[in-house]
Amino acid sequence: MSDIAPLPTLLVEPIVRAALLEDLGRAGDITTAAVVPREARFFGAMVARRPGTIAGTAAARIAFELVDHSFEISVLQPDGSVVAAGQPVMHIKGPAQAVVTAERTALNFISHLSGIATVTAELVAGVGNYKARITCTRKTTPNLRALEKHAVRAGGGVSHRFGLDDGILIKDNHVALAGGISPAIRSAKSGLGHMVKIEVEVDTLEQLEEALNEGVDAILLDNMGPDLLRKAVAMIDGRAMSEASGRITADQVPAIAASGVDIISAGWITHSAPALDLGLDFGVTR
Amino acid sequence: MSDIAPLPTLLVEPIVRAALLEDLGRAGDITTAAVVPREARFFGAMVARRPGTIAGTAAARIAFELVDHSFEISVLQPDGSVVAAGQPVMHIKGPAQAVVTAERTALNFISHLSGIATVTAELVAGVGNYKARITCTRKTTPNLRALEKHAVRAGGGVSHRFGLDDGILIKDNHVALAGGISPAIRSAKSGLGHMVKIEVEVDTLEQLEEALNEGVDAILLDNMGPDLLRKAVAMIDGRAMSEASGRITADQVPAIAASGVDIISAGWITHSAPALDLGLDFGVTR
Amino acid sequence: MSDIAPLPTLLVEPIVRAALLEDLGRAGDITTAAVVPREARFFGAMVARRPGTIAGTAAARIAFELVDHSFEISVLQPDGSVVAAGQPVMHIKGPAQAVVTAERTALNFISHLSGIATVTAELVAGVGNYKARITCTRKTTPNLRALEKHAVRAGGGVSHRFGLDDGILIKDNHVALAGGISPAIRSAKSGLGHMVKIEVEVDTLEQLEEALNEGVDAILLDNMGPDLLRKAVAMIDGRAMSEASGRITADQVPAIAASGVDIISAGWITHSAPALDLGLDFGVTR
Amino acid sequence: MSDIAPLPTLLVEPIVRAALLEDLGRAGDITTAAVVPREARFFGAMVARRPGTIAGTAAARIAFELVDHSFEISVLQPDGSVVAAGQPVMHIKGPAQAVVTAERTALNFISHLSGIATVTAELVAGVGNYKARITCTRKTTPNLRALEKHAVRAGGGVSHRFGLDDGILIKDNHVALAGGISPAIRSAKSGLGHMVKIEVEVDTLEQLEEALNEGVDAILLDNMGPDLLRKAVAMIDGRAMSEASGRITADQVPAIAASGVDIISAGWITHSAPALDLGLDFGVTR
Amino acid sequence: MSDIAPLPTLLVEPIVRAALLEDLGRAGDITTAAVVPREARFFGAMVARRPGTIAGTAAARIAFELVDHSFEISVLQPDGSVVAAGQPVMHIKGPAQAVVTAERTALNFISHLSGIATVTAELVAGVGNYKARITCTRKTTPNLRALEKHAVRAGGGVSHRFGLDDGILIKDNHVALAGGISPAIRSAKSGLGHMVKIEVEVDTLEQLEEALNEGVDAILLDNMGPDLLRKAVAMIDGRAMSEASGRITADQVPAIAASGVDIISAGWITHSAPALDLGLDFGVTR
Amino acid sequence: MSDIAPLPTLLVEPIVRAALLEDLGRAGDITTAAVVPREARFFGAMVARRPGTIAGTAAARIAFELVDHSFEISVLQPDGSVVAAGQPVMHIKGPAQAVVTAERTALNFISHLSGIATVTAELVAGVGNYKARITCTRKTTPNLRALEKHAVRAGGGVSHRFGLDDGILIKDNHVALAGGISPAIRSAKSGLGHMVKIEVEVDTLEQLEEALNEGVDAILLDNMGPDLLRKAVAMIDGRAMSEASGRITADQVPAIAASGVDIISAGWITHSAPALDLGLDFGVTR
Repeated sequence: MSDIAPLPTLLVEPIVRAALLEDLGRAGDITTAAVVPREARFFGAMVARRPGTIAGTAAARIAFELVDHSFEISVLQPDGSVVAAGQPVMHIKGPAQAVVTAERTALNFISHLSGIATVTAELVAGVGNYKARITCTRKTTPNLRALEKHAVRAGGGVSHRFGLDDGILIKDNHVALAGGISPAIRSAKSGLGHMVKIEVEVDTLEQLEEALNEGVDAILLDNMGPDLLRKAVAMIDGRAMSEASGRITADQVPAIAASGVDIISAGWITHSAPALDLGLDFGVTR
Repeated sequence: MSDIAPLPTLLVEPIVRAALLEDLGRAGDITTAAVVPREARFFGAMVARRPGTIAGTAAARIAFELVDHSFEISVLQPDGSVVAAGQPVMHIKGPAQAVVTAERTALNFISHLSGIATVTAELVAGVGNYKARITCTRKTTPNLRALEKHAVRAGGGVSHRFGLDDGILIKDNHVALAGGISPAIRSAKSGLGHMVKIEVEVDTLEQLEEALNEGVDAILLDNMGPDLLRKAVAMIDGRAMSEASGRITADQVPAIAASGVDIISAGWITHSAPALDLGLDFGVTR
Repeated sequence: MSDIAPLPTLLVEPIVRAALLEDLGRAGDITTAAVVPREARFFGAMVARRPGTIAGTAAARIAFELVDHSFEISVLQPDGSVVAAGQPVMHIKGPAQAVVTAERTALNFISHLSGIATVTAELVAGVGNYKARITCTRKTTPNLRALEKHAVRAGGGVSHRFGLDDGILIKDNHVALAGGISPAIRSAKSGLGHMVKIEVEVDTLEQLEEALNEGVDAILLDNMGPDLLRKAVAMIDGRAMSEASGRITADQVPAIAASGVDIISAGWITHSAPALDLGLDFGVTR
Repeated sequence: MSDIAPLPTLLVEPIVRAALLEDLGRAGDITTAAVVPREARFFGAMVARRPGTIAGTAAARIAFELVDHSFEISVLQPDGSVVAAGQPVMHIKGPAQAVVTAERTALNFISHLSGIATVTAELVAGVGNYKARITCTRKTTPNLRALEKHAVRAGGGVSHRFGLDDGILIKDNHVALAGGISPAIRSAKSGLGHMVKIEVEVDTLEQLEEALNEGVDAILLDNMGPDLLRKAVAMIDGRAMSEASGRITADQVPAIAASGVDIISAGWITHSAPALDLGLDFGVTR
Repeated sequence: MSDIAPLPTLLVEPIVRAALLEDLGRAGDITTAAVVPREARFFGAMVARRPGTIAGTAAARIAFELVDHSFEISVLQPDGSVVAAGQPVMHIKGPAQAVVTAERTALNFISHLSGIATVTAELVAGVGNYKARITCTRKTTPNLRALEKHAVRAGGGVSHRFGLDDGILIKDNHVALAGGISPAIRSAKSGLGHMVKIEVEVDTLEQLEEALNEGVDAILLDNMGPDLLRKAVAMIDGRAMSEASGRITADQVPAIAASGVDIISAGWITHSAPALDLGLDFGVTR
Repeated sequence: MSDIAPLPTLLVEPIVRAALLEDLGRAGDITTAAVVPREARFFGAMVARRPGTIAGTAAARIAFELVDHSFEISVLQPDGSVVAAGQPVMHIKGPAQAVVTAERTALNFISHLSGIATVTAELVAGVGNYKARITCTRKTTPNLRALEKHAVRAGGGVSHRFGLDDGILIKDNHVALAGGISPAIRSAKSGLGHMVKIEVEVDTLEQLEEALNEGVDAILLDNMGPDLLRKAVAMIDGRAMSEASGRITADQVPAIAASGVDIISAGWITHSAPALDLGLDFGVTR
């Protein structure tokens, strides 16, 4: 899927700035300062070394621009693009010192985020013609959640709640602490704003029935196989959104999607996606 | 390897604090506030669901303590410990609301960092009795480098330079821009402080000879197979540290270590290590 | 309404700390340092000078504690309490210098937030036995939204979406820019996560019908009088939540609530509520 | 009063940036991203819906520019201008998405600050031809004091001390803790810098006499009616500035000004001024 | 002079925290972690190696406490104390690792600030029985002004205005740009708050007369020798405070003080004071 | 020495921004706002009042540009240049208000840093034709270390380790706590990365022999006179870098350099260098 809305620069820039400072340390790029002629110019491309789905072009571009304002960068493959190995993702023109200094930070962002987009796209492909949509969870890398959720969207997924404050998700621990599904849902509904949805996690069809009787917006069906999911979807019968969850691999997606669930969520697409290999191919003019 | 020196709390706390705020958003944990009784107490354990090597206990502990000062936490398996599936890593006692609120942030840190420690330990095991040591690169997750390098140490690895400012590493781009190995090294040496080491990347034995003639502290042998590495090590003959690099998988480590190199570096142990699965097993008292 | 869940200290403390530093400036409280004996102790109370509903006790308490860790503070009237003129809200015991230094910052928070809670409670009272609930908007004081929304809850209101990212609210501008109600709703639904609600603003019954045909979670009925609201509620007939909006004063609330709407929103309860007068009554021991 | 000196952008920008981030949250403006065409352009005006005095144009302009650098904004009514209902305050030209995203933040600043300027101007008008000047106190909205004091100046008021560190103001609490007016003033004078003024609060003419005997720069006459103020001003006889204070409403200003005091201070002009209603009138080109 | 009011911890702690992080870098104290046994305890003293006046004990103490909460520190010589070479300033008891890690940061603060206090005390001593007081200027070390002005007070000096916002100081540049002494003073007086003082810099007796005719609170007599100062003081005749300024060395202070000026200001006491040598004498228990 | 590599703007700008805000306070430059016409233009020069070596031009330039984006500044004497009294360092053209506001902050940076560069250059000159290089220590001004180390390089010095994390320096305290030179070095070597150097401080030739037997990269010869240094250098015989340290004045440098040491380090060049006097010579056009 291409052409998703970019994150606001106001959100992305401080994260990229911090990452550059993490790498620059307290004395800056001492190798480049000593070795690369100041007047050298760079003209080259950031290239995908493996096939995948791109995310993070904004962060990469900002990394170069924060090091030097004069860069001319054109993004050839915006977030959500599917690329082949060897395909250029962006053209970069600017001072050679600044390219070498910013290169690693730029690549760290785009490789990490494209890795997430790539595995998300694989899950989305596994859904085929079923209606299920792929989403991620709150199992994200600390302090990168906004960027990682954006990468999931770049891969064709949709968003779940962002954090603890923008949706009610009653999980097994909450149920145990509240003394059951019904009391938990009732407590949650009291005082709830009209723009907040409620989802509840259930492990059995009995719990599911209890939840449906109370009425909720969505139900998380935890660690259920395709057969049980099919029964659950039938019981729900359109009264709530259904979400299948629990260590779902790419191989299992087709069968789970066939069960008729609305949402398939997977934590590993954010916490364990391998980075997509990208690199800089470069030419130099002095 | 157990009992490595912890990172200063002054460094770790701001990162954990930011991650908690990322999850709390602007209204806090609205599910827990509505559903979990305030007086409920939690007594339970953080448990490894898979075998691996632990890193990140400090970040996890700080996550709980930042949400509530009254937690009593005892770390059973400090960073560097090897654990079996099902083994408890820390005991946690405190208010149930705070446990549920902090749980995901604490687990996100320790799962991510233990994943890195675990793959590092696998590479270390592959070295066997050879002298080679495992190290990571600057291909780290943005803004988590300090914690990820600590996780590499927890897995038995050693540190490379932290960033662009604390060591000279002349890479292929620098060589190209400087006009050759020799001019690059000479530029780098001029004005160098006495506590800074110089390493240079070479792709061929010809480049290696040029580097050895100039004199450097370490040589990065990029993308060389075991045979070529063996020749390179023989040429170096103790005049510099030798580092093998370039998409080195766990399978390849024994053969590479047998070549006699001093250092084996791998970027993927920080950018593509799958998270280690840990979870909270819990009991409650009201 | 009493006993609402407090905001996390992690969220409140940085705001209070910044406010103290705003007042301390660069040399601290030079009057108190010169005039108040260091050994003097304070024992007294923060007292409501006018009747109202309390909010902001946490911020006030944190203001004192940030200036001196040894304070003993007991909150007598937690957020949501209704107080009479002259009634003590919290007892405060600590060093006299620190009391005088922190007093204004503590009072600025609790007066501002209690002012908001007080007018909210007046609107809630106006609803009487009708089902309508009172909510605020995004017309809040810059950088105090979390605290102000908490104050609205303390006054018996409920929360609307917190910001631009946690709910879809299609307003008149969006409709104009999208080329109509239907295309706006359809664009919004494509790619929407399952935990996000959609609300659309309508000005006429024609627009309302168009919105109902598309299907949304809630409808904002803008600037409609009681009669028109009654017709709109009848048309909606339970298919969506109904929200009445548009400069609604306390006098108008009963008639609007009688129209049967689910939600009455008012921007002025956050942007134009007069502060509730509170002060410190104090005794001193040297 | 028009054409007051603007606050430095260095001071204003971080506050506006934080307010935008408060509203953008972690995913940005999801409604606008989904609904408003990216290529749509906006040309319109920010308009006063009610008559009043303008303050906060810089903050409003910065809000738009931080969301998109390409805005062309011309301020028609600078801070301090008196406007009629319907009068345009600034012309705005830029991308429609950015206008809709920044609109609420920009309006929140200018409405809040113009509200303060407007009530200040009403008090200033009440003074008529007397010499008294209107000033605010430290009863300001947390973390907005610089902007609010600027708004008071825009309304024709003058500044009091900014915080606890830039002037000595001995209040009743200080007097009580120091053991009397005289010892308090003497302690304050010892070690005082030559650029710092001393003001002391008195409740009675006896206290006033004691203060005058010690010698101070200014005297705060707390909660005195016009007659008592007249006597106090006569006693002071030019030996110090006189400040009338204590819940002074617009109605009371003429009588108080007629007493001959130099300064009339009012806390409510910053903590309880209703916002001035402003909005965006807009045209669109695609 | 002893027993001056301490700066608020809220102001000092962030500066010390930043300085510790500057030294800890991204991996912490790797020498101490590798070399010093974790269980080793330290009991020792911070000692003055040269005679001088102490300032900065709070910053030093905070440096240790931020590294480890369990320190027991007793300050023997509070800010403002005069010490002999070899005299202990504070006793320190805590973990040896933490002492060694925090030592340099603690010493950097107290040495720098005590250096300033020491030269200030020398100027104060030079005044003898004359009434002149010593003050510093805005020629301070970037981002340390609050601490440096506190150090000046510790040395017996008094404060000047803190920055550009808390006093009017019309300097030669302002006069030139405003078109003369009189127009500058008149512009400054218009709209001035009643708690702000005005000082004007004059270079000649003609300018002085012009300033006195306008009326100001203080006059900066720039680069005048003792004779000219004496004439200026006579002309002023108590109508304003008189401040002598312009590269005033310790040797010149007595003659300048004898001229009868109220204030002697010196920029070099903050920007060029040599650090006072302090060190740690330590014993260890394991 | 001229033409040293500049520090990254990303590092310098936040420090300059904080310093400007420290001076602007909460109301900005109230004198300039009241007195200097807004339309006045400035064209002038920053000039050295005394001879010396320049450092800090980037910080000074950034100070002006942060106050107003329209400045045209040309640096005539880049960092490392040797200037005579009266020589212009940079030409400055821009709004007069902004010049007067930024002037003090810009001068505070360049005066402080040029003071350090100047004394460093004096020590470098003292070395003459010997091979010794001058370096500073960690005795720097809190939170200015990056700029001060850059100033040392501008004066012809070289860098030592930046902080506690980028090199092993075993000092006397570490030796005492570790139980001797040998155990300290052995502990440090275990687990050390291949890019980290080890230096050890020795006080006697016996300690030196012990260190040489263990093998280290560098040896700090503390408080040794020229004769002892000569013996130490002979013993070392090229097996490690030799560093002479301990209150080394400019007068002593020649004799110490003649001893054959590689490095001469001095703490006072950062903590006690007097500021170099620079000022603004200005012309104005209205």
